[in-house]
Amino acid sequence: MKYGYLGPKGTFSHSAADFFAKGEETVPFTSIYNVLSAVDGGEADFGVVPVENSTEGSINTTLDTLIFDFDLNMSAQLNMPIAESLVVREGTAIEDITKVLSHPQPLAQCSYYLRENLPSAETVSVSSTTEAMRQVSESSEPVAAIGNKISAPMSGLKGLKEKIQDDKRNFTQFALVSKKPCSVSGENTKTTIAFSVRNEPGSLFKILSIFSIYDVNMTKIISRPMRNRPEEYVFYAELENDSPKDIEESLTMVRRKTSFLKILGKYRLYDLR
Amino acid sequence: MKYGYLGPKGTFSHSAADFFAKGEETVPFTSIYNVLSAVDGGEADFGVVPVENSTEGSINTTLDTLIFDFDLNMSAQLNMPIAESLVVREGTAIEDITKVLSHPQPLAQCSYYLRENLPSAETVSVSSTTEAMRQVSESSEPVAAIGNKISAPMSGLKGLKEKIQDDKRNFTQFALVSKKPCSVSGENTKTTIAFSVRNEPGSLFKILSIFSIYDVNMTKIISRPMRNRPEEYVFYAELENDSPKDIEESLTMVRRKTSFLKILGKYRLYDLR
Repeated sequence: MKYGYLGPKGTFSHSAADFFAKGEETVPFTSIYNVLSAVDGGEADFGVVPVENSTEGSINTTLDTLIFDFDLNMSAQLNMPIAESLVVREGTAIEDITKVLSHPQPLAQCSYYLRENLPSAETVSVSSTTEAMRQVSESSEPVAAIGNKISAPMSGLKGLKEKIQDDKRNFTQFALVSKKPCSVSGENTKTTIAFSVRNEPGSLFKILSIFSIYDVNMTKIISRPMRNRPEEYVFYAELENDSPKDIEESLTMVRRKTSFLKILGKYRLYDLR
Repeated sequence: MKYGYLGPKGTFSHSAADFFAKGEETVPFTSIYNVLSAVDGGEADFGVVPVENSTEGSINTTLDTLIFDFDLNMSAQLNMPIAESLVVREGTAIEDITKVLSHPQPLAQCSYYLRENLPSAETVSVSSTTEAMRQVSESSEPVAAIGNKISAPMSGLKGLKEKIQDDKRNFTQFALVSKKPCSVSGENTKTTIAFSVRNEPGSLFKILSIFSIYDVNMTKIISRPMRNRPEEYVFYAELENDSPKDIEESLTMVRRKTSFLKILGKYRLYDLR
């Protein structure tokens, strides 16, 4: 079994892939699209992709690719705590740091720390936290990277400050995605759907009425402009109910009242927080 | 009057600031937080910040900063079409391009074009489209930048391909933000709010019921994990109704049924599409 994930090695995505793979092979890909395309084409049996970060919000590329580009299934989800570290070469002191490199997302997640502790350091966006560490290891300047401290030794670096992200309880939700749906039941089971309604007063309310009648709890809802039809909106929603029959019957009714409905998956949620 | 915007010069944010400033002074800042902080502290009279892009979704930094960090008011919004161009030095041919530099957002917005037309070119994230153009102008390699073609001549570059973004109808919604609320009325008036409800079945439904009773149309809704309380969600919603009295009375009721409610602004929406 092959598990594709958003590379490179040493990122939190890699750790999430390891959680699901349980010792089976994990393969890094260069983009979320490429992970999902590999699962769709059969080059990977499973894909592990980020869906939402507690600080940064939903990962729109993942949502849009699952809604519009491929017909895949979310087979499981995982809440993984994200602890960012300030990582340097041996001998670099915090007061000397002139530049901080990382992926744009960790930079955003540590913006309060950077403003308070390194106000004059320049921040530089690079393609990944692993790439940031590589550049720090090859530099002769007093520069730092932000990333997963577990991977610092891979580049000969060390953690200088730990848990520097603004939100100490920061976590990312990852989805395990496969070509075929898996069967799930029991507690902590969620269903994720995407749907569109006509842009007229009360049309979203009608959909939520249906879920209310069937005692289905909506734990997340995000409206997004529809690709190529920006005046229309698509809603991405996460549903919770212990009875599969209630979910199924509510969705039968929702289908009648929406112009577009796609069930992205029914799955078990794992929580490492 | 001073209008702060997310710099550097030559970006679409700059064009949005020019739209509102109508010839008054515009000042670039290095981050969305810094724009809003300048308005809060009085260094700028107005701030112009992106709120949502039709391809990439909501700009979470803007939403979170307005909800949690400052008490500012959205005084107007603007839908501005975003046309990305592939920009090169004179003499660079498309088939020679080895590397494409840009801000992560335009790179994401052109991902289909890049996959189809430059599959082997490396993509490099830098801090802004202006910085990408600067690096291209100083390079001796066959590299390209993605950005606003209006600013290409500033770096001695030229547009090679225009409108390369995946969504030809791509646009960004910008908010004009000020310390004091402005008075608005009439058509195309929107109200943006943020609220939290307890995470129990039907609590969001109750809020939408109130808006339904008052004929208030919700044109956008986004749930986001609450900062520092990731198990709670905050909803960011855009409301539409021609009667200010209906909006006001519905919000009085909503306040009773929410644990947190913040009115981010009542404003006029301008549309350049």
